[in-house]
Amino acid sequence: MPLPIDVDYARQLDRQDVLARFRGEFVIDDPDVIYLDGNSLGRLPRRCIGRMHDAIDRQWGERLIRAWGDDWFGAPQRIGAKIAQLLGAAADEVIVADSTSVNLFKLVMAALQARPGRTRVVTDELNFPSDLYVLRGALRLAGADYRLEVVRADDGMSVSADALAGSIDERTALVTLSHTAFKSGYVHDMAQVTNLAHRAGALILWDLSHSVGAMPLSLDEAAVDLAVGCTYKYLNGGPGAPAFLYVRRDLQERLVNPVWGWFGQREPFDFGLEYDRAPGIAHFLTGTPATLSLLAIEPGVDLLLEAGLSRLREKSVQQTEYLVGLWEALLQPLGFTLNSPRDSKWRGSHVSFGHADGWRIDRALIEEMNVLPDFRHPDNIRFGIAPIYTSFADIHETVRRLVAVMTERRYEKYPVERAGVT
Amino acid sequence: MPLPIDVDYARQLDRQDVLARFRGEFVIDDPDVIYLDGNSLGRLPRRCIGRMHDAIDRQWGERLIRAWGDDWFGAPQRIGAKIAQLLGAAADEVIVADSTSVNLFKLVMAALQARPGRTRVVTDELNFPSDLYVLRGALRLAGADYRLEVVRADDGMSVSADALAGSIDERTALVTLSHTAFKSGYVHDMAQVTNLAHRAGALILWDLSHSVGAMPLSLDEAAVDLAVGCTYKYLNGGPGAPAFLYVRRDLQERLVNPVWGWFGQREPFDFGLEYDRAPGIAHFLTGTPATLSLLAIEPGVDLLLEAGLSRLREKSVQQTEYLVGLWEALLQPLGFTLNSPRDSKWRGSHVSFGHADGWRIDRALIEEMNVLPDFRHPDNIRFGIAPIYTSFADIHETVRRLVAVMTERRYEKYPVERAGVT
Repeated sequence: MPLPIDVDYARQLDRQDVLARFRGEFVIDDPDVIYLDGNSLGRLPRRCIGRMHDAIDRQWGERLIRAWGDDWFGAPQRIGAKIAQLLGAAADEVIVADSTSVNLFKLVMAALQARPGRTRVVTDELNFPSDLYVLRGALRLAGADYRLEVVRADDGMSVSADALAGSIDERTALVTLSHTAFKSGYVHDMAQVTNLAHRAGALILWDLSHSVGAMPLSLDEAAVDLAVGCTYKYLNGGPGAPAFLYVRRDLQERLVNPVWGWFGQREPFDFGLEYDRAPGIAHFLTGTPATLSLLAIEPGVDLLLEAGLSRLREKSVQQTEYLVGLWEALLQPLGFTLNSPRDSKWRGSHVSFGHADGWRIDRALIEEMNVLPDFRHPDNIRFGIAPIYTSFADIHETVRRLVAVMTERRYEKYPVERAGVT
Repeated sequence: MPLPIDVDYARQLDRQDVLARFRGEFVIDDPDVIYLDGNSLGRLPRRCIGRMHDAIDRQWGERLIRAWGDDWFGAPQRIGAKIAQLLGAAADEVIVADSTSVNLFKLVMAALQARPGRTRVVTDELNFPSDLYVLRGALRLAGADYRLEVVRADDGMSVSADALAGSIDERTALVTLSHTAFKSGYVHDMAQVTNLAHRAGALILWDLSHSVGAMPLSLDEAAVDLAVGCTYKYLNGGPGAPAFLYVRRDLQERLVNPVWGWFGQREPFDFGLEYDRAPGIAHFLTGTPATLSLLAIEPGVDLLLEAGLSRLREKSVQQTEYLVGLWEALLQPLGFTLNSPRDSKWRGSHVSFGHADGWRIDRALIEEMNVLPDFRHPDNIRFGIAPIYTSFADIHETVRRLVAVMTERRYEKYPVERAGVT
């Protein structure tokens, strides 16, 4: 049975939304702007404003160096422990530090050293390009024998466990993938792929950037070894907020962070000249954290924990289904392809539509229609749904405006070129 | 001729201070608190408050993803170019990225690869311990042949160029030192030591954390190869604000950042699967910058540029001389040693006094006297002078209160142990 396409139906869904109150927790200054790029930069939580003004005006301005002891020193662990609840991990298995790419570098180098004699790293072409760059750089350091195997996505949007299995063998040191693909939104089967890696004696490392905060995760249950992820997407942590890293407890002492630093030192204020690494996950810290950016993460994580990941995922699935239904009824006839999996089981919280004029249509949506999606080369207009604040009316209105862009041919004035922001 | 020790003299010096107006540019909420830890965490510039409220409320809250194009993308280069003016470097030789420790790791690994066959790195025991940890971690990755040579400071506070010369030879790949020592405030002769390294065919890497913003620097003139430094000390960039790195222009294409990432990619939004590094210094970027922390750096740097480094150094020397003069008259008789160079030519902008009860005296200063210095193991009470906001009256009053701590034996109630914050 097709979904009703009228706006009343969208409004009805919003009225039934048990998470509706959370929209009011975010700054939405201009109700005409429809923001569907929360998987690139999440919205500003209202409670973050007060937190940051306090961090700047009182903690830095008045408490000065004393604020380290008051609050700041424990923040990587404290916020990491909250993120752990989003990951299905224990509090002492997650810490906030550096950027996703730097954390990935640390964990990849550590993983290679933990699997001596194995010289292959397996990933796929759906992985975020920066992850591939980090891997190539790390393998270059590791030595000339090392190789990266990038498994192809034959349909352009998904890579099955079977496809991966053909590349994972006794030479594989590490399998590392984006759990949810940044372009298509394809979601790997975490347990199955993890199991594949483990059966071959390899370690697994998941980049959770496009998953965390949008769906429940079960790292411990799936026996995942390592993970990294962004905090500025569905976690609403602010632009470039420090990333998190997860190391399963029993690996924490066996793996060695290659980038040593005083925040990973057992007693940093002894100022000893030798590196005596801290126990547990703390030794994956390196330098002094970017504290203002770090503190901004916490209010958004608190909101997700209040909303609950099961409910968020349920709403997210309902919303991407709704968007795909509207595509079927209204956009497919206008030449848009669905560049995301049709089955919500394999789909994260964003949906990509392809169109030969994708870049120009994206520009028209932004410049003329106050809709903010994102564009991903070569032809994907990517609509990110953040179930904690996206409404069904947002989705309905987006499609209505997109139809207007097409029928009024508003995209034609824009040049045929591309650009974008993750 | 000894300095007058009365408060009127301090007030007279403040009246004559051509930089006095800059004190009003900083948040100083409680006039009774004397803050002499600006070389650990600089004060909050008043103009930073408005800048950060705008970054949070308007840029993140309202502009959302569009703020990347408006302002954020160029920030590492734009702020780097301003810091370059503080370093005596060209605008395109400095960039802001990651933490000091992560930047040090990148440049050390790059330097080792640029000097194949050379397996020694030379530093000294005055270097900040985190730098030593980074070096040890990097050398472990580089291979079993590599060795770190840590030149001793025989007097506990300084290492002459002659002492270094004995360790620098044809096996040396890299010489790396803190330009101003974090504990004693000893300042290396940058030109002479750089020349020593170059004569042996080694590269030089300076950690400028305790120098930048407190004295003019001449990296290009001294033909320095590489440098890193903090922005949260004399630059007043906020807690853990991202660090800077300098690579001399002719080395930028020859050296390879080992931690590849999409912010170092030539065209990151092509999302190509191969790493095609950006030209110039940009390829020393890795992941998405911690943008809120990054933006907080700029107002403080602007203030330093307005004040002028020559005038700041002149005032800093006058202030540390004044403090040393008061030590001579009032503190030496109470058992304090001067753990910093006596000659201002060899001294940065902080002064350390040693005392067997140093830790307890430091606690008493903080808890009972509203003076905030810092403590550095084993016995150093470190007084950081930030000439842009420290007054001569601050210094006079600090010594008066320190004398009171001693004569009233106020430190005796504190336990004999240690801790601290850089």
